[in-house]
Amino acid sequence: MKLCSKKWGNEKYLITDESDETLEKGLDEIRIAFNKMPVIQSLLKDFEKNKPLQDLVISCCLHVTKETANLMRTLKAGGADVYLCGSNPLSTQDHIATALASEGIHVYAWTNNTDEEFYECVDACLIPKPNILIDDGADLIVTAHKNYPEYFEKDGCIIACQEETTTGVHRFESMDKNGALKAALFPVNDASCKNQFDNELGTGQGVVAAIYGMHVLFAGKTVVVAGYGHCSSGMALRARGLGARVIVTEVDPVKALKAVFEGFEVAPMNEIVHKADMIFTATGCNNIIAKSHLDKLKNGCILANLGHFDVEIVAKDLYAAANGKIKTIRPSVEELIMPNGNKIYLLAQGRLANLALSEGHPAEVMDMSFALQAMMARYISENRQVLKVKHSILKVPDELNNDVAFAKLEAMGIKIDKWTEEQYKYHTSFEEGT
Amino acid sequence: MKLCSKKWGNEKYLITDESDETLEKGLDEIRIAFNKMPVIQSLLKDFEKNKPLQDLVISCCLHVTKETANLMRTLKAGGADVYLCGSNPLSTQDHIATALASEGIHVYAWTNNTDEEFYECVDACLIPKPNILIDDGADLIVTAHKNYPEYFEKDGCIIACQEETTTGVHRFESMDKNGALKAALFPVNDASCKNQFDNELGTGQGVVAAIYGMHVLFAGKTVVVAGYGHCSSGMALRARGLGARVIVTEVDPVKALKAVFEGFEVAPMNEIVHKADMIFTATGCNNIIAKSHLDKLKNGCILANLGHFDVEIVAKDLYAAANGKIKTIRPSVEELIMPNGNKIYLLAQGRLANLALSEGHPAEVMDMSFALQAMMARYISENRQVLKVKHSILKVPDELNNDVAFAKLEAMGIKIDKWTEEQYKYHTSFEEGT
Amino acid sequence: MKLCSKKWGNEKYLITDESDETLEKGLDEIRIAFNKMPVIQSLLKDFEKNKPLQDLVISCCLHVTKETANLMRTLKAGGADVYLCGSNPLSTQDHIATALASEGIHVYAWTNNTDEEFYECVDACLIPKPNILIDDGADLIVTAHKNYPEYFEKDGCIIACQEETTTGVHRFESMDKNGALKAALFPVNDASCKNQFDNELGTGQGVVAAIYGMHVLFAGKTVVVAGYGHCSSGMALRARGLGARVIVTEVDPVKALKAVFEGFEVAPMNEIVHKADMIFTATGCNNIIAKSHLDKLKNGCILANLGHFDVEIVAKDLYAAANGKIKTIRPSVEELIMPNGNKIYLLAQGRLANLALSEGHPAEVMDMSFALQAMMARYISENRQVLKVKHSILKVPDELNNDVAFAKLEAMGIKIDKWTEEQYKYHTSFEEGT
Amino acid sequence: MKLCSKKWGNEKYLITDESDETLEKGLDEIRIAFNKMPVIQSLLKDFEKNKPLQDLVISCCLHVTKETANLMRTLKAGGADVYLCGSNPLSTQDHIATALASEGIHVYAWTNNTDEEFYECVDACLIPKPNILIDDGADLIVTAHKNYPEYFEKDGCIIACQEETTTGVHRFESMDKNGALKAALFPVNDASCKNQFDNELGTGQGVVAAIYGMHVLFAGKTVVVAGYGHCSSGMALRARGLGARVIVTEVDPVKALKAVFEGFEVAPMNEIVHKADMIFTATGCNNIIAKSHLDKLKNGCILANLGHFDVEIVAKDLYAAANGKIKTIRPSVEELIMPNGNKIYLLAQGRLANLALSEGHPAEVMDMSFALQAMMARYISENRQVLKVKHSILKVPDELNNDVAFAKLEAMGIKIDKWTEEQYKYHTSFEEGT
Repeated sequence: MKLCSKKWGNEKYLITDESDETLEKGLDEIRIAFNKMPVIQSLLKDFEKNKPLQDLVISCCLHVTKETANLMRTLKAGGADVYLCGSNPLSTQDHIATALASEGIHVYAWTNNTDEEFYECVDACLIPKPNILIDDGADLIVTAHKNYPEYFEKDGCIIACQEETTTGVHRFESMDKNGALKAALFPVNDASCKNQFDNELGTGQGVVAAIYGMHVLFAGKTVVVAGYGHCSSGMALRARGLGARVIVTEVDPVKALKAVFEGFEVAPMNEIVHKADMIFTATGCNNIIAKSHLDKLKNGCILANLGHFDVEIVAKDLYAAANGKIKTIRPSVEELIMPNGNKIYLLAQGRLANLALSEGHPAEVMDMSFALQAMMARYISENRQVLKVKHSILKVPDELNNDVAFAKLEAMGIKIDKWTEEQYKYHTSFEEGT
Repeated sequence: MKLCSKKWGNEKYLITDESDETLEKGLDEIRIAFNKMPVIQSLLKDFEKNKPLQDLVISCCLHVTKETANLMRTLKAGGADVYLCGSNPLSTQDHIATALASEGIHVYAWTNNTDEEFYECVDACLIPKPNILIDDGADLIVTAHKNYPEYFEKDGCIIACQEETTTGVHRFESMDKNGALKAALFPVNDASCKNQFDNELGTGQGVVAAIYGMHVLFAGKTVVVAGYGHCSSGMALRARGLGARVIVTEVDPVKALKAVFEGFEVAPMNEIVHKADMIFTATGCNNIIAKSHLDKLKNGCILANLGHFDVEIVAKDLYAAANGKIKTIRPSVEELIMPNGNKIYLLAQGRLANLALSEGHPAEVMDMSFALQAMMARYISENRQVLKVKHSILKVPDELNNDVAFAKLEAMGIKIDKWTEEQYKYHTSFEEGT
Repeated sequence: MKLCSKKWGNEKYLITDESDETLEKGLDEIRIAFNKMPVIQSLLKDFEKNKPLQDLVISCCLHVTKETANLMRTLKAGGADVYLCGSNPLSTQDHIATALASEGIHVYAWTNNTDEEFYECVDACLIPKPNILIDDGADLIVTAHKNYPEYFEKDGCIIACQEETTTGVHRFESMDKNGALKAALFPVNDASCKNQFDNELGTGQGVVAAIYGMHVLFAGKTVVVAGYGHCSSGMALRARGLGARVIVTEVDPVKALKAVFEGFEVAPMNEIVHKADMIFTATGCNNIIAKSHLDKLKNGCILANLGHFDVEIVAKDLYAAANGKIKTIRPSVEELIMPNGNKIYLLAQGRLANLALSEGHPAEVMDMSFALQAMMARYISENRQVLKVKHSILKVPDELNNDVAFAKLEAMGIKIDKWTEEQYKYHTSFEEGT
Repeated sequence: MKLCSKKWGNEKYLITDESDETLEKGLDEIRIAFNKMPVIQSLLKDFEKNKPLQDLVISCCLHVTKETANLMRTLKAGGADVYLCGSNPLSTQDHIATALASEGIHVYAWTNNTDEEFYECVDACLIPKPNILIDDGADLIVTAHKNYPEYFEKDGCIIACQEETTTGVHRFESMDKNGALKAALFPVNDASCKNQFDNELGTGQGVVAAIYGMHVLFAGKTVVVAGYGHCSSGMALRARGLGARVIVTEVDPVKALKAVFEGFEVAPMNEIVHKADMIFTATGCNNIIAKSHLDKLKNGCILANLGHFDVEIVAKDLYAAANGKIKTIRPSVEELIMPNGNKIYLLAQGRLANLALSEGHPAEVMDMSFALQAMMARYISENRQVLKVKHSILKVPDELNNDVAFAKLEAMGIKIDKWTEEQYKYHTSFEEGT
């Protein structure tokens, strides 16, 4: 893999490979994913015709996967000038980046870039004065606030922002509370047709693919899932569906109770960490597998983080404890021998295992999430006057959410009921009682 | 059963029975339910000591069950003067009403009262100028708006209102949109520690009890569930958990998709109504089993409504079709012979089957819902100045919701994790990124 | 309830009630159950026409329920003279006994008979020199061996025997090993279309009905199931399907492993008995809840035995511990206060809770079990010469098993595939390989 | 990859690769699998010490995977001279074959060998006059009967045979019926600690790994499973556990009913083939996806066979229909464009997809199956006099089955209950009744 400034322009961070094979592979995978994204298909067609994003610069910080590629192509079809950096150093797929670059998207992403390079890439997406920011984890938008405050001023370029993931939304809520948010922000993650599908289904899918790729049986195992939010409860359900005994840890009392009433054992991590054959963390918080847990881990235990940032498992302490007795036994799977002789298997060095060990969330659900992102961008374009002056978190309009769901159902060949006029009247009246 | 004005006062609608046996039975059941309501237990103790509801009149329109009885006792322990009418003609349990009356609650409810009597009872709860209204289905509060508009004026008695159920909240949303709501209204139903437990678990529990009481097997049956909201999705899950094949109908595209991705078949009612061995409706809308479906129903089909109002199944048309060939084969179970010879089993005449055929939602979950109602009343009392001037739907404060959940976990002997200071700091910061 | 020798003959133990209402109720319930037993329906029709049991005396020891009644009616329709005693003192339903007597079945059974009466009833069924014995639990056949050894001799009346339940089959296997079995015995229980349906579905159904009848929620509870055979694994699955956390105890290592790989926690009773909110025993062995467990039971714990005999829970020791602090809070539900103050709820005094607290296994599955029993009797009749000389356990012929299943599928309107000739040829050849 | 006769002897079919890297990889994978096979570990240790297979020649026809390797090493450790050929052309992993050869096992297997080569390899395992045959699919033993009838004569080398899989056992049952079986045969497949684990869990695991490897979501899909035996019902359960809607096809009425009562839709293939997003066949019969179904397949449908032989899907007809429009989009995944334009995805050309697209059944369950095979060989060695004269299918002794299960539980750290003497006495007595 090398930087190439010849083929598709002279931008410094444009990552490509001269090999046609890589390009071919990328284009092919994007095409196959596109086949599984019918809602994106019809949007792209519509965008091509109506150019709703004409004259806009849209910068995105997203996992560079074949599904993201189809969102980028859709935004571009709508008339936007599109910039893309990767939202996680491990999740970028270089052949996809190459293919996207060949289609005229400005791509600043390559796998395993350093922290410094990561922020250079983010910066490269901010320099062209974007009008809309689409983020996954808040790094792009937070950096913009820090380094380009003028973009958010009255005459600045920014119209509004869109955020893809729970962790990012959480960061913006903190900003909003502190009065630090300087633009309208749509938490796309919070729309039901995003989080009830992408989050609940995608994460579990990725993890199951990862664990199955390791040729490990779920059935008969004791699986600890840290957290019981959208991603983690989806993971717990999948593990149970595959025959595992699942124990849940939580800090939120309502979520904990929900797990209890859905039949899961719930306990503090410290009391059950020694029983686990596998531990999955998806809490959005740090030190979930803490230093104090390390010598309690069972021989053979698999550790995987599903949360956005690599802070949930204390990977550094784990490596330190192994003291060099570390062996990579499969791609992204390390065997660490602890002082007590136990073998621990750490996935993806504690980073997003579901993305690092599989190909990311499946196209079928990303179709919904990214259709919503594309519709959101169109909505922002259409309402730019109104939105420019707002400085807070706004709700994704229900119509967009429903439009995505209707389109998905239709594409899947599933019909549902519609209210008759009489029913509509009944439903919208509050007078009729007992 | 007769009206008795001698024993506990001279109020016209106070329903009691002179038999000590009935009273005994009621008191006994209330006590057994109380044993299963640990959160209510500790609240009642606290209320007795601190009298947070001193000087308030609280009027309630709720299902008159042993669990409701324990809420009434708690409110009274807090110092309030408490009035109660039944929220559904079928769900009142007379021995509970009797027992409550003996404890000094003003009760206006008896089983199977007529529509006219129903509204007389509601009125009896409004005459004493209540400060707080606690409703289940909106009938009490809507009637108050109609007949006692002065209560909602600046110097009127009403401080705020509380609503227990989805249907009621929905009616208030319509009112709010139309500017017709004249008081602060807390949709207790919408708090997660209410709807994710009471609604999702209680309804299914009641229906399963009803069907099992009929000695009918779920396994191997084709079950149609109309709706995929909290109550109906809980019902679908229970039916599947018992071995039924479940088909879901919906009008909401997101809920429909959710059912699909959770493995259910989803289709319009008209296309699958003939396959059903049982149909459960819980949509909040009318004509779900419509006249046009009647001659398609399979021989032996069981029809049950779980929605608040008896409009979901066209019971009148069904009776008309049976043309007198109707036989009660168990309490609240009628066998109707249709013109095509098929036998249809209608539960509770199309009214709330889960309440009519079983004892209502189990004490374990009502503990949470009613603890929240009691805390809500205390909160209203404490914030009366602020709330008096609000005229819209307000959110139940998160602290109340969490307090209930923490108390429930503790009572169940379940420990959960707590953030360390370091974790708290991480979680509330938005700066730390990739 | 009183003995009546006037109405339907002068037999001493014929239990009836003079009330027409009781008779009416019994006949009505038998009719409703018959509607749900389509395979029995078509057999009865066929038996009426062809009289395959002409000249035979058939004596049965079975739970006297509405479903058993329809088996009795079918045997009688086939030409047999039919005698029936109850197989468990708690499970006899007197109105069913009354109704059966009115139809000419010789019934010797009433609810709650004493041990002495129980064996008098058994004897009454043996006196008329039966040709076929149909048993549930082995009491009838074992007693016949003891008291009427001449029946099993070369010229004796017995042709062959049929056993309905796991416990009975187990006893006959012990007899067979010891050379004590003196007739051909068909373990109907061991046929797949019996034990995979009746046992796996029926027991769980009965227990769920019982627990729901107590208005207790399964969701969120910790449920211990002792055993992981047909009945107990079915119970475990149902409890899980209703949202409980289930722990399994076993002595058989293969069954224990199966539970583990199906996601259940498995542990010795002694280590987890204190965690249980409910304990269900279905092992076929005694002292499962032993004296040493009693002071470990959690406050509120529900104890129920699903095994055939009342030896699995040490009820006597439990009553002794409660030392008079015993209160019946619902029919067949006793609250016992233990020396440590904990309240324990014992169902049916430790006898078959699923039968005592509900109406027995549902008609839909008994249709299969009893159709097989009826076909088995016909088969015995047709093969009497051959069978008379056999003295061991024989396998229920596969054709009978399949015939029941085909008939059931047809009655349910379910079509399945059939092999083409080419497929049949492939399947029955062993030559074609890789 | 090339044949190499230099390094480990001069046998013609010994497949190795001169590359040390391949050898290293094979040895490493065998070691990692060994870590997950605790029962095999302790057996190997015992065999090394006691040499129970001294002087025996054992020939095996098995899938050449890392788990099989550990069985081969165990047999060799027991003193046997061990020969191995692959049981399926697709499932042999060449680096494993290489590694095994380096340890002194006579290996005759390489991936993708032709039919002719396949039988040459089988023959190579028969030439050395084996005493025990261990087979997977019956090819080795059937070929021995055909080509080496003298081995089965009174003074022939064969003592007894062992069969690993359902299909093989089925073929032997046909032979046995026809009097064609000339040796004692132990259907290891039929032991509960084999088929209830390996078959029910392993197949589903492999398929899920395969489908997830294709980055396809199970949730929301309609999945057709042909068959409801051990493998197929396990597959159906997994698909449901992952959120798919599952439809089952069967020819056996009892299995079909079982599927119905477990909540699955059951229908003839022809009526539902057009609804399937994925079809999995595991019936043991041919033409399950027949020529007549091909033009009904839905666009995007995935076809995979899980049965032992590649006859279940008419792959030839499928290729013919695609008429050259065939593209390999991932390893072992072909996209075929049908005359109607629909894209069909065929896995592994219709051969065992779960083995071809994943690494075979996981070590955790193969530990049990292969421990049983090893114990079986020891048992045959110990009972050679008795077994030599038997010519039929014998039952695997219960003790072996239980020994494996006890050892597995111990290795997993799971304790279970043991009968007290009193319980044992109760259980083995038949006298104690009601």
